[in-house]
Amino acid sequence: MARPGRRPGPTETREAILSAARELFGARGYDGATIRAIAGQAGVDPALVHHFYGSKENVFVAAMRVPFNPADVLPDVLDGPREEIAERLLRFFLGVWNDPDSRAAFLGLIRSGMTNEAAAAMVRQFLRQALVARATGVLGISPLRAEAAMSHLIGMMMMRYVLRLEPLASADEDELVSIVAPSIQRYFDGDQGP
Amino acid sequence: MARPGRRPGPTETREAILSAARELFGARGYDGATIRAIAGQAGVDPALVHHFYGSKENVFVAAMRVPFNPADVLPDVLDGPREEIAERLLRFFLGVWNDPDSRAAFLGLIRSGMTNEAAAAMVRQFLRQALVARATGVLGISPLRAEAAMSHLIGMMMMRYVLRLEPLASADEDELVSIVAPSIQRYFDGDQGP
Repeated sequence: MARPGRRPGPTETREAILSAARELFGARGYDGATIRAIAGQAGVDPALVHHFYGSKENVFVAAMRVPFNPADVLPDVLDGPREEIAERLLRFFLGVWNDPDSRAAFLGLIRSGMTNEAAAAMVRQFLRQALVARATGVLGISPLRAEAAMSHLIGMMMMRYVLRLEPLASADEDELVSIVAPSIQRYFDGDQGP
Repeated sequence: MARPGRRPGPTETREAILSAARELFGARGYDGATIRAIAGQAGVDPALVHHFYGSKENVFVAAMRVPFNPADVLPDVLDGPREEIAERLLRFFLGVWNDPDSRAAFLGLIRSGMTNEAAAAMVRQFLRQALVARATGVLGISPLRAEAAMSHLIGMMMMRYVLRLEPLASADEDELVSIVAPSIQRYFDGDQGP
């Protein structure tokens, strides 16, 4: 593969790792694709994958072009006043979707998850480990409540940015937050039953 | 097209109309495809389209295999105690999605809307006229609140039936309703600001 007379540089090695990762995540799902297997497929030492990416989650985020790493973002969202978590979450997602590059990456991920079972399995497992497990751990809410909140967030982004239903698509961010945040916040308030 | 020696029967005529409708809805969007144009494309008299289907909305529902006609269903959901609208809506949608045929039809519609701009325009215009306009008219809420409610409903169905995120995918219907309905109901309560 490499050009003769030259060892592959870090950029080519990273590309080989990400390409192997996309293949294995697609074939085995997020849970089934190990760093060891990805390294084997890319023809590199697993230690190098760890060195470049640190965790399987980071490999996934890079390989799938997820526009942000939940591990970096969630602490900021989950910290701060608990009664404003939904507002911080909404504003963060609106920011991500307003950026054309991030939006394209997100759309690719959602479209794949909607139309292809292997991609759906990948996205499903990643959402559970990267978002749901963290949110339930920190907030002490049930996974069902965390997923209900996520379903509203994702549905909102789809209707605003993909279907572009008016007036939702053009609604001012502050107005949108004032209308929607309380319905999401309900799921993060601990005193409402199951 | 018709076999020689035989005039096309009602079944063939309906198929010709639906096929013309799919083509025109796809090419011109829901608003742009008129009954007259659909009839012309199918080579029949517009009065025959009216006779078979009664309205453009009914043509769309049949052509796109929408699993229910909002005009038939919404009155039942919107009637009855206002404080239980969200619960009736949720139970209705869960019923539709639990049926494999309806689910397949819905999935086709959503997948097209997510991946193809012509389909997105069609679905968008149909949702606005068939659902949003009716809900705002009857309930006196803003279109933005109606669409926020719809975004939660659609996001929920996608996560439960398409991505199949657990525990949401296997959650008992009553439990789901008790957790989610209040967040949707908020949008239908008139006393909460914008």
